[in-house]
Amino acid sequence: MLPTIAWKNDKVLMIDQRKLPGEEVFVECSSYICVAEAIEKMVIRGAPAIGVAAAFGVALGVFGLKKDQGLEQEFDRIYQRLEKTRPTAVNLFWALERMKKVFLANSAEGLSRLKQRLLDEAKNIEREDVEANKMIGYWGKDLFQDGETVLTHCNAGALATAGYGTALGVIRAVFESGKKITVYADETRPFLQGARLTCWELVRENIPVVLITDNMSGYLMKKGEISAVITGADRITRNGDAANKIGTYSVAVLAREHGIPFYIAAPMSTVDFELQDGDQIPIEERSPDEVRKISGLCLTIENVEVRNPAFDVTPAEYISAIITEKGVARPPFKSSLAELRMDLQD
Amino acid sequence: MLPTIAWKNDKVLMIDQRKLPGEEVFVECSSYICVAEAIEKMVIRGAPAIGVAAAFGVALGVFGLKKDQGLEQEFDRIYQRLEKTRPTAVNLFWALERMKKVFLANSAEGLSRLKQRLLDEAKNIEREDVEANKMIGYWGKDLFQDGETVLTHCNAGALATAGYGTALGVIRAVFESGKKITVYADETRPFLQGARLTCWELVRENIPVVLITDNMSGYLMKKGEISAVITGADRITRNGDAANKIGTYSVAVLAREHGIPFYIAAPMSTVDFELQDGDQIPIEERSPDEVRKISGLCLTIENVEVRNPAFDVTPAEYISAIITEKGVARPPFKSSLAELRMDLQD
Repeated sequence: MLPTIAWKNDKVLMIDQRKLPGEEVFVECSSYICVAEAIEKMVIRGAPAIGVAAAFGVALGVFGLKKDQGLEQEFDRIYQRLEKTRPTAVNLFWALERMKKVFLANSAEGLSRLKQRLLDEAKNIEREDVEANKMIGYWGKDLFQDGETVLTHCNAGALATAGYGTALGVIRAVFESGKKITVYADETRPFLQGARLTCWELVRENIPVVLITDNMSGYLMKKGEISAVITGADRITRNGDAANKIGTYSVAVLAREHGIPFYIAAPMSTVDFELQDGDQIPIEERSPDEVRKISGLCLTIENVEVRNPAFDVTPAEYISAIITEKGVARPPFKSSLAELRMDLQD
Repeated sequence: MLPTIAWKNDKVLMIDQRKLPGEEVFVECSSYICVAEAIEKMVIRGAPAIGVAAAFGVALGVFGLKKDQGLEQEFDRIYQRLEKTRPTAVNLFWALERMKKVFLANSAEGLSRLKQRLLDEAKNIEREDVEANKMIGYWGKDLFQDGETVLTHCNAGALATAGYGTALGVIRAVFESGKKITVYADETRPFLQGARLTCWELVRENIPVVLITDNMSGYLMKKGEISAVITGADRITRNGDAANKIGTYSVAVLAREHGIPFYIAAPMSTVDFELQDGDQIPIEERSPDEVRKISGLCLTIENVEVRNPAFDVTPAEYISAIITEKGVARPPFKSSLAELRMDLQD
């Protein structure tokens, strides 16, 4: 299993995803502020992984407290710092809410017990995420025939989760089932998650992968060289609209234009049933320098004006199916997702 | 006027477009082989500019000859070397054919006179290209209202031509006419012509430009932030299918999906009336390292498999109009382009 994040000796370890694949180095956090900054700076990224990191961040924050007095106030400070790291992925807020519930249920029982309960819950979130990904793979693998050539955008792999991955989890499950599969990974500018992370993960496991730039997928679809598309998601609204890494929407439009199925793979924790549709999802705009530069190398005129939305929303009408740990939701998603949610609450 | 290419002291000077905008350095060629390599390595690129470079390359080759004997054989060698530099842009072959006609008409008149005739013809091609671009701007500018936000892909500017530009020529003409215009330049991986060249050209002339990555245009179109798209072309077939830089087709599909006009700006020398449709256009596949690396910096796993088609074909049905120096062709292009061609032959 790839080492995305781990709790070790009362510290949080994360592989520094900004430096992959060139360097495999770890960031070690002994404070929740360090974890918050790691999320902001994309040491760790990917909706489910951000959720797990935030949960460990909360535990780490409470581990740092020395006395029972003012616990609630301290907890709020930790919660609020982690909450404001990134706005789009709902797993962050979902994980923080789970941690808060455990805090509220145990805050009267003494700091020592509370610490253990919070750490247990963070570890639950981590473990459940891996389990969910395995189930996503289980349900998703039957959507793919032998010999498919599947485009994925960004990295929805082990590195984007606690392990195994969502979109890459499905690809792993297809591969493990013995079917031939070739992955087209688009590089995913500006952060290059496809070129750096998806290629790294797949090459490690000998899953055939071909790297392309983001603007090549239309050409390959028109040539009949892509048979399906699968991506992760950062937030799915109750009607099935899905926010994901910038560029996902363009790929979805191209897929529909060419009659190619477009799948989203995500755990139920990514579905935000509070939101009616994708227009309500906040889209993070990140630093212009992410577009202007790569590893400090300026690609353009210094200070040229830049837009850098980190996500876009793919309307439900472009999505063929949403693969969750509870099963495969098909359109209309409002009812199919609601059914899976009931199943979740059983 | 930007210094794309010039004949000076019996040498060919080209600004090294691989190094812009960081460095403004020139490559000086005193042999046709040097010019051929400059085209192959993309010191100079852009269909019309490649045509001009090839014409100067022929002149330079013949300038290097010392005796009248075996002229035809020598000419063929020069022609064939230049012809095999890049397969997609038809302007290369069109310019070589023009030079060959002049060679055949003057080869009996002595080497000295032949050299002058060939140099004159190369300079004609250069001068006519700038004139054509000005006329493209003249015809094209009325397609744009005041206040438009126009996406362009790759660089179809002064640097892609002998001067002024095709797509950027239209943008310049709109700007010079006093209308407000904002250009969205996508970076155009892998060679980054948008980030490096289009931004450089527009910032120099204070034309408002916003840089985005290639995967952001769908998002901006959906948000209503792009009102039109304009690109150049490398080869247009008689039915209006247009080969252009990889990613153009994706942008065209997105434009149609959002009801946004998609314009091609190109001189008539880019129209290949020999070809029925875009399926017949050869698409160049370039080195994998163009995708893997930027300025020597590896973005991914060393040796990961890569696809690197340099162009794609946008079918005529996605194109709202083709803006040429003879006027604006509207669908159906088979008849409208044929009419403009007759006009050309008048």
